[in-house]
Amino acid sequence: MSSSSSSSPSRSSEIRRDAVFGRCVVFSPARARRPSDFRSHSPVSNPNASSKPSCPFCIGREDECAPEIFRIVGGDGGAGEWKIRVIENLYPALQREAEPPKDVPELGPCKVSGFGFHDVVIETPYHPIRLWDLPVDEVGEVLLAYKERILQLSRHGSVKYVQVFKNHGASAGASMTHSHSQIIGLPLVPPSVSARLNYTKEVFDRTGKCSLCEIQSKDILIDETDHFSAIVPFAATYAFEIWIVPREHIADFHELDHKKAVDLGGLLKLMLQKLSKQLNDPPFNFMIHAAPLELSATCLPYTHWFLQIVPQLGVIGGFEIGSGCFINPVFPEDAAKVLREVDLST
Amino acid sequence: MSSSSSSSPSRSSEIRRDAVFGRCVVFSPARARRPSDFRSHSPVSNPNASSKPSCPFCIGREDECAPEIFRIVGGDGGAGEWKIRVIENLYPALQREAEPPKDVPELGPCKVSGFGFHDVVIETPYHPIRLWDLPVDEVGEVLLAYKERILQLSRHGSVKYVQVFKNHGASAGASMTHSHSQIIGLPLVPPSVSARLNYTKEVFDRTGKCSLCEIQSKDILIDETDHFSAIVPFAATYAFEIWIVPREHIADFHELDHKKAVDLGGLLKLMLQKLSKQLNDPPFNFMIHAAPLELSATCLPYTHWFLQIVPQLGVIGGFEIGSGCFINPVFPEDAAKVLREVDLST
Repeated sequence: MSSSSSSSPSRSSEIRRDAVFGRCVVFSPARARRPSDFRSHSPVSNPNASSKPSCPFCIGREDECAPEIFRIVGGDGGAGEWKIRVIENLYPALQREAEPPKDVPELGPCKVSGFGFHDVVIETPYHPIRLWDLPVDEVGEVLLAYKERILQLSRHGSVKYVQVFKNHGASAGASMTHSHSQIIGLPLVPPSVSARLNYTKEVFDRTGKCSLCEIQSKDILIDETDHFSAIVPFAATYAFEIWIVPREHIADFHELDHKKAVDLGGLLKLMLQKLSKQLNDPPFNFMIHAAPLELSATCLPYTHWFLQIVPQLGVIGGFEIGSGCFINPVFPEDAAKVLREVDLST
Repeated sequence: MSSSSSSSPSRSSEIRRDAVFGRCVVFSPARARRPSDFRSHSPVSNPNASSKPSCPFCIGREDECAPEIFRIVGGDGGAGEWKIRVIENLYPALQREAEPPKDVPELGPCKVSGFGFHDVVIETPYHPIRLWDLPVDEVGEVLLAYKERILQLSRHGSVKYVQVFKNHGASAGASMTHSHSQIIGLPLVPPSVSARLNYTKEVFDRTGKCSLCEIQSKDILIDETDHFSAIVPFAATYAFEIWIVPREHIADFHELDHKKAVDLGGLLKLMLQKLSKQLNDPPFNFMIHAAPLELSATCLPYTHWFLQIVPQLGVIGGFEIGSGCFINPVFPEDAAKVLREVDLST
């Protein structure tokens, strides 16, 4: 971070703080290439056109996986046919058979059992297909599979928070190349989730407005559908970070119905296509930011779910780990403009 | 993260929360190799025995750098001779000539000018020397150079927090291989620093104890000197993470005197030698966690500085970004045992 290729800066540095995480980001164009020049140096190579022989997520190798939780069948639902499988993770971070913790003290050091769920959503039976290669309605079905599994976990009284996420590319944490996402059910509400909701509550108490409802301004908008907006957030922590936000105030992802799932599927597919084309198929993560399960029955004025997509173009260094502030070389307005203008037809 | 090489687990998963950051970590031995088997897959190659011709941090190339702030001269202090140089960063994230922000609203979205300082500490004139290759008293001098620069910045009324950090290795954020660290002076207190101090204050208010004073238990101790302990923290977020903590309750790093600097230099050198040997010269970061400058004149019962060292052996994925919880495959007690037993004589 002490040196980088540089062009003469057209704008000065700026420090921004967002209204959702309350996090500071230093926008530092002096350290940047032109926004349109950003490319991943380690693109995630598209798996070969044929199935990888050793991949247990491929169709026909189901017996090499951990137990299946459910599957979505396609077409005529013939023997062995499936479109999506939700399975247990063979190497789970948490153990579903452990005793759930009874009490988690509110403050200070503590340790509890590693009870929890760690599942995998295999998004397609076919190795070469990436999530954004699927037809829009099938992306919608993947989203509905998340919803179904969240609803199942929410009926387990000891699960307090569900984190849905996708890692694409080894440097974004994916150890399997076959397109998949993951769902972790935790026996406690992560402190940073509580902190996020406390922050949006404070903002609401002060302003009477929901941070996520207020976030959707024109200059950072990439695209929108009937029900969702895709924006580069005002204080994006990563270059070309995207948030997909319900345009209406909706507390939780799992309120998604079929129509909205297809609508969201289309926008997610479009954003992943744009990132892949513009940034040279970068490694990325996406995460669904929801409310703790006990809050999600009621829609509070400050709970509003969203999906965050972060391309992994840079490195988190000591400044970020130490201060919690991020350095982003691309202003959100510039990133949004570049992403608006990506031409997928060529 | 959905698959990994695995040995049969000898311990169950556990979720821990620490008393400093209030962060949750999932310890998941089922996903791990044996603690003694951890090695970096991308070791930071030791620069060649000769200087790299193009490195502007090398002795004799001072005129290719941004302006010098001060230097520590060595030996007879002859012409051009120096041991440590503190210089401006040629590509600073923040701009010292910008107008400092007057008011930063306490809550909600905001943007302020990118005023601040971003400096580089060149730890040695010689390209092949790593920080832990220096004699103990010279490591101490590097620490005293940090102190001197912090004191200079603290006299600038608009600097509210100083982050000292070192990135070692490209995948830990270092763009220069010549041994150096960085110092960033910020015009505001980062929200996560405030959150850390609020947390230790809450713990103190509840228990009457300082989280950092309480942290130094035997099973996680690696080594100690007259004035410092090196531990693997109870809820380490990274495998083989190390904290060096003053054994006495001391608010701020820049209270370090010469004797303590040499004492700390010896322990820091030893820890970096152990990490390098045990983990195959991994990329790493270290960060000094201090109090905001306006607090540092008084030693509050809950402010206690420490130095955090994090080897970069894994990848931060969507679970960590989304939930703020980390997954660590190595229990702190196991990591501490391995690090205690590293034999540097062979």
